[in-house]
Amino acid sequence: MADLYSTIANIQPLDADAMAAAEARQGILTKPPQALGRLESISIRLAGITGNPMPSMARKAIAVMAGDHGVCAEGVSAFPSEVTPQMVYNFTAGGAGINVLGRHVGARVLVTDVGVAADLSSAEGVRQKKVRMGTANMAAGPAMTREEAIRAFEVGIELVEEEIAKGLDIIATGEMGIGNTTPSSAIIAAFTGLPAARVTGRGTGITEAGLLRKIEVIERALELNQPDRTDPIDVMAKVGGLEIAAMAGVMLAAAAHQIPVVMDGFISGAAALTAARLCPNVAEYILPSHQSVEVGHKIVFAELGLTPLFDLDMRLGEGTGAALAMSIIDAAAKILSEMATFESAGVTGDTIEEVPA
Amino acid sequence: MADLYSTIANIQPLDADAMAAAEARQGILTKPPQALGRLESISIRLAGITGNPMPSMARKAIAVMAGDHGVCAEGVSAFPSEVTPQMVYNFTAGGAGINVLGRHVGARVLVTDVGVAADLSSAEGVRQKKVRMGTANMAAGPAMTREEAIRAFEVGIELVEEEIAKGLDIIATGEMGIGNTTPSSAIIAAFTGLPAARVTGRGTGITEAGLLRKIEVIERALELNQPDRTDPIDVMAKVGGLEIAAMAGVMLAAAAHQIPVVMDGFISGAAALTAARLCPNVAEYILPSHQSVEVGHKIVFAELGLTPLFDLDMRLGEGTGAALAMSIIDAAAKILSEMATFESAGVTGDTIEEVPA
Repeated sequence: MADLYSTIANIQPLDADAMAAAEARQGILTKPPQALGRLESISIRLAGITGNPMPSMARKAIAVMAGDHGVCAEGVSAFPSEVTPQMVYNFTAGGAGINVLGRHVGARVLVTDVGVAADLSSAEGVRQKKVRMGTANMAAGPAMTREEAIRAFEVGIELVEEEIAKGLDIIATGEMGIGNTTPSSAIIAAFTGLPAARVTGRGTGITEAGLLRKIEVIERALELNQPDRTDPIDVMAKVGGLEIAAMAGVMLAAAAHQIPVVMDGFISGAAALTAARLCPNVAEYILPSHQSVEVGHKIVFAELGLTPLFDLDMRLGEGTGAALAMSIIDAAAKILSEMATFESAGVTGDTIEEVPA
Repeated sequence: MADLYSTIANIQPLDADAMAAAEARQGILTKPPQALGRLESISIRLAGITGNPMPSMARKAIAVMAGDHGVCAEGVSAFPSEVTPQMVYNFTAGGAGINVLGRHVGARVLVTDVGVAADLSSAEGVRQKKVRMGTANMAAGPAMTREEAIRAFEVGIELVEEEIAKGLDIIATGEMGIGNTTPSSAIIAAFTGLPAARVTGRGTGITEAGLLRKIEVIERALELNQPDRTDPIDVMAKVGGLEIAAMAGVMLAAAAHQIPVVMDGFISGAAALTAARLCPNVAEYILPSHQSVEVGHKIVFAELGLTPLFDLDMRLGEGTGAALAMSIIDAAAKILSEMATFESAGVTGDTIEEVPA
């Protein structure tokens, strides 16, 4: 199918019975109550997402969505756009950070060309789903058409459905797209109404002057395009990105299929916010990973009602933070299914009620 | 050997050449500078610890030290002491939280009886290194003799040396000992001079009244025993614990053998502080894991100049937080050795200097 509207329509609230069963089980495992903290609450959420009181997170995938950005013509990034296809080749060769961390946590890395501004049709190991050769410069007009934005969301939906056919328990979003912190900031500013300066950071490492220029470019794009914040597809089309829409599509499809989806850094955050504006229920299916160095990431967490699992000062994108989180989430699931109960282990579960004299 | 004094004498500063080589390599890997944040700084520290610019963290162990506490007679814990040996059996059966997380991260779990107040001599899979059948009640006299404390430190040293013979790249400390947050708070109060109330929390979950009693017991133990804060062995003997001393021994031996050691929660923190008072250099070999719910843990981080890697509201002990951290630390090492360089991957590493017009 890979249809945006029917996917959204299929997203249900979490399964309350499975969550209650998981919570009850956490209470009889051989540990003091709540002693495993967020591992316990994650496990309960996984039960609610999957509808299974003892879910397995064995089959993991990281969806790395690649796309280019016309707005790079404004000098918003420290690296040139040619790095996007170069890094795609690095992904397929297994040499990038996400490859190392994907192998480390036992996740397959899925590299998809959603909109790289270079011909990658002969690149082995790349899912060929190009919508167009990069976005247009949003500081001079809309980044893409509404139809292209919808198609980009559906690239993410399509990918999830292909992976479900192969076996999938959990998926994470990652990306590669030189310049893509700029549309991400624009998306967040558009949805929240916050000034660009509040949600814009240095990306891969621009200077102070570069940051001021980047903020000005975002302000110009918002002023020129007037995205309608009540219409998330309009926001994505006017000031978004092809890979960002695809990541939002991954989140929507994961939720529709009761599969937990791990949000990586700032760009994933912009995608998550878009997905949540398309369907508020999707936030319950999104598991946070790290707090990115990018200033706007905190706004996303607040908007989605999520709390990051850790903050390691990372700002790579690619899905690297999500990969590490995925391993913690898998651990949470294993606690639920593999730990002994007080009864099965013959451990005294009752606490001391009486105070010794 | 397993001698406390020669072990301390063997601890050297980190290898500056290996650290410089690792830092230089981080600068040429296919990512923006510092984009992997603390994963990069951890990898550099691992190089300094091991003296290897590209160290492997493949062979992992978690040392779970078990001991009982006479101070439980004062009603300081929510669980009865009989849970300590019951949990040791649970560890050997593979059903505890640390077994689940040890398997998850590929670490062997080493369960050692340092001072459980029950006969475990026929328990399969338990390292038999009992110093005595639990400590004495520190609220009524010293917890143990000076000789027993030294022997308990040496149990940890011995364990590390046995494991090195089998192959060991990284080790973590964990523990089991009903009541052991009480001596841990006493140790931290003794070393820092802070009031007991500042470093004492609810352990496995005592009531408000229980917390007040616990603080009073710690104050009484410190007043009665007058531990000499300039003599860490005296502190450990008077208000410490057998498994806590053994954990400190693990840290000292790991440092002496250039092996990184991961600190778990609050009790590991009391052990780390003791080890650092015996030899300040040891702190450079200790890698932090999580921030425990226990209030005194923050004091330990400040005293050691360490910052936790994550805070998941955990308070189990056993080594569960350290296990998760070990996987992140292993990932950091793999980043250094497995990622492609800009040159090897054919990626443009130069950032844009000129601002487009």
